[in-house]
Amino acid sequence: MSGGCPRAPAARLAGIEPFRVMALLARARALEAAGRDVVHMEIGEPDFPPPAPVVRAAQAALAAGETRYTPAGGLPALREAIARWYRERFGVTVPAERILVTPGASGALHLVLAAISGPGDRVLLPAPGYPCNRHLARLVGAEPVALPAEGPEGGPRPQDVRAAGPAAAVLAATPANPTGGVLGRGALAALADAAREAGACLVCDEIYQGLVYEGEPCTALEVAPGAFVVNGFSKYFGMTGWRLGWVVAPDAWAEPLERLAQSLYLAPPTLSQHAALAAFEAESLDELERRREAFRARRDFLAPALESLGLRLAAPPAGAFYLYADCSAFTDDAEALAARLLEEAGVAVTPGADFGGTGAAVRLRFAYTTSLERLREGVARLRAFLRRA
Amino acid sequence: MSGGCPRAPAARLAGIEPFRVMALLARARALEAAGRDVVHMEIGEPDFPPPAPVVRAAQAALAAGETRYTPAGGLPALREAIARWYRERFGVTVPAERILVTPGASGALHLVLAAISGPGDRVLLPAPGYPCNRHLARLVGAEPVALPAEGPEGGPRPQDVRAAGPAAAVLAATPANPTGGVLGRGALAALADAAREAGACLVCDEIYQGLVYEGEPCTALEVAPGAFVVNGFSKYFGMTGWRLGWVVAPDAWAEPLERLAQSLYLAPPTLSQHAALAAFEAESLDELERRREAFRARRDFLAPALESLGLRLAAPPAGAFYLYADCSAFTDDAEALAARLLEEAGVAVTPGADFGGTGAAVRLRFAYTTSLERLREGVARLRAFLRRA
Repeated sequence: MSGGCPRAPAARLAGIEPFRVMALLARARALEAAGRDVVHMEIGEPDFPPPAPVVRAAQAALAAGETRYTPAGGLPALREAIARWYRERFGVTVPAERILVTPGASGALHLVLAAISGPGDRVLLPAPGYPCNRHLARLVGAEPVALPAEGPEGGPRPQDVRAAGPAAAVLAATPANPTGGVLGRGALAALADAAREAGACLVCDEIYQGLVYEGEPCTALEVAPGAFVVNGFSKYFGMTGWRLGWVVAPDAWAEPLERLAQSLYLAPPTLSQHAALAAFEAESLDELERRREAFRARRDFLAPALESLGLRLAAPPAGAFYLYADCSAFTDDAEALAARLLEEAGVAVTPGADFGGTGAAVRLRFAYTTSLERLREGVARLRAFLRRA
Repeated sequence: MSGGCPRAPAARLAGIEPFRVMALLARARALEAAGRDVVHMEIGEPDFPPPAPVVRAAQAALAAGETRYTPAGGLPALREAIARWYRERFGVTVPAERILVTPGASGALHLVLAAISGPGDRVLLPAPGYPCNRHLARLVGAEPVALPAEGPEGGPRPQDVRAAGPAAAVLAATPANPTGGVLGRGALAALADAAREAGACLVCDEIYQGLVYEGEPCTALEVAPGAFVVNGFSKYFGMTGWRLGWVVAPDAWAEPLERLAQSLYLAPPTLSQHAALAAFEAESLDELERRREAFRARRDFLAPALESLGLRLAAPPAGAFYLYADCSAFTDDAEALAARLLEEAGVAVTPGADFGGTGAAVRLRFAYTTSLERLREGVARLRAFLRRA
């Protein structure tokens, strides 16, 4: 074949694992297409639409023809709005120049890792954790090093960071996927100290910020003003498919990050940026706080229900919209159990293998991104299935 | 400072140059804010709005709440629509499974380079060319190697590819930025042969496809069915800020590319994808062909006008919306000349340094992304300035 690509997919791609949840979701959709009812507890996407002002702002921007390129770092007005958000909600002063708007929090994580790490560098990251972290570290040539993150601290422990030795970056996430663990200010400050001792930048993924059910949200910037903080509009703000995130960078890094952004993705999507300006309006925030209460009610039902079934929670379920449960009472192969739960009980959950860590083979992640009524139905099905199993 | 990042911006970022055009654009905006009139011939963005059906489709998707995550490879319906486009417009059969929708053509270029090249690999690319190419190659750890691309062939020459030795990838662009050069089917086939002999994948950037003014557009897939082809909705389709592109991958690569896409950016923006479905409607295509005629008329005015001023064109201006002119009759420092043109004549153009290549120091890129009337004004100002100079 003329011009056929003579190369096979590179060995480096063999280490990039697919999300197991995607195959499971595809199978769930196939079962539904065949008439089966499936309770979806696998999806890491809020079931709420974006707040009404966000949709109206997008409509207005469309009507006004606001669909041209923006600067690589985002619309100045949106960078200012995010700076105001940190000031008013968290009492933290961050100049807008240190905030870069990105294509999703994924874009922000990638941008930061590409900037601060490369060949010969080690990146310490929580396991279990968001599966893309280790792939992104490898893609920029760095070596991901997993640290345990399932304990009550809700993240990597300072003593593990110290024991791991020199590193370019320490990743933390709060609230965390998949455990729902939350790092308090004290834990974040201790982690920042340990990172500095390791010569590493602290990168804190706060994409589930706002979704906490004990106390009020915080940011690593309150105690570690020099951290890289990654966030976005997908989870708390309910704007998943809009692909819009941001990073707060230490002062010296903002300019090189913007240069890098030009090459990596040119600019974030324009309509999404205009829409996101409305995410901070009072009407939006009121709606988002009502949703936080709805998530809390779901958690308050689901956590004890799973425990009563013998699915013990691996961490205190303080935030995000996930529960990470130990299923070792029933199996030593959570992936096989998840497959059977879908096929035999019509309940879709995510096996721990997507998230890594030593316990992954006997963990299941339950997302409460569906209604209380459907969660009740899911638990009833689980109960019947586990009784038979 | 507690938790301050102890690391300085990495040396690897020193090699990531900013677009000089961005600083120039910022200065142009400052002059305008101070009351000066500037003719913009620096901007690589069509001055036309998206076709009306695209805007209507976005409005309908917004109203229907179509703003959730899509699969990493894009909406199946959009992948099918792009496959149909290749079949109907170019007579090329590409299964939808081999087409991945990406966040802009930037996202596609990055995805492909990350997949096919890495540390130890050489990536051959055209100089002058799109400035991000060499940065993206470096970011994935590969070594960019510049090949001359200013000749009448409109791209890297097969003999230069052969002389360069083993490589992981050969990049080509047609129509090309900044020269406007177009590679015909014969040139593309010869390039594909040379790439195969070098053991390299051919990656053809066709983002300006459709914007050709001699004959009809073609695709590398017609003669090199195993090439990676990068394209998008920004230029011909007039959808810049929507950040939507695609890649056509050889069969064995589609699945690993989709895995990689999950990690790099999760999914392309959803509203943009629904909107793009309408870009292939007859009403849209009729409008886009009228615009092609408008661009042709601008080129037909601007090319001889620049030549008459002593700004010789470096390549036959067959496509895209750029003319790349040799200003060595007036200066040996095009960057300084561009600065003076802006300050003293109120004409914004892009210096060659953004694009690389041996002649860069005495080249200026003129974009005809503004009206014929404004181009006439720009030429009049250039004439007066150069007479004085």
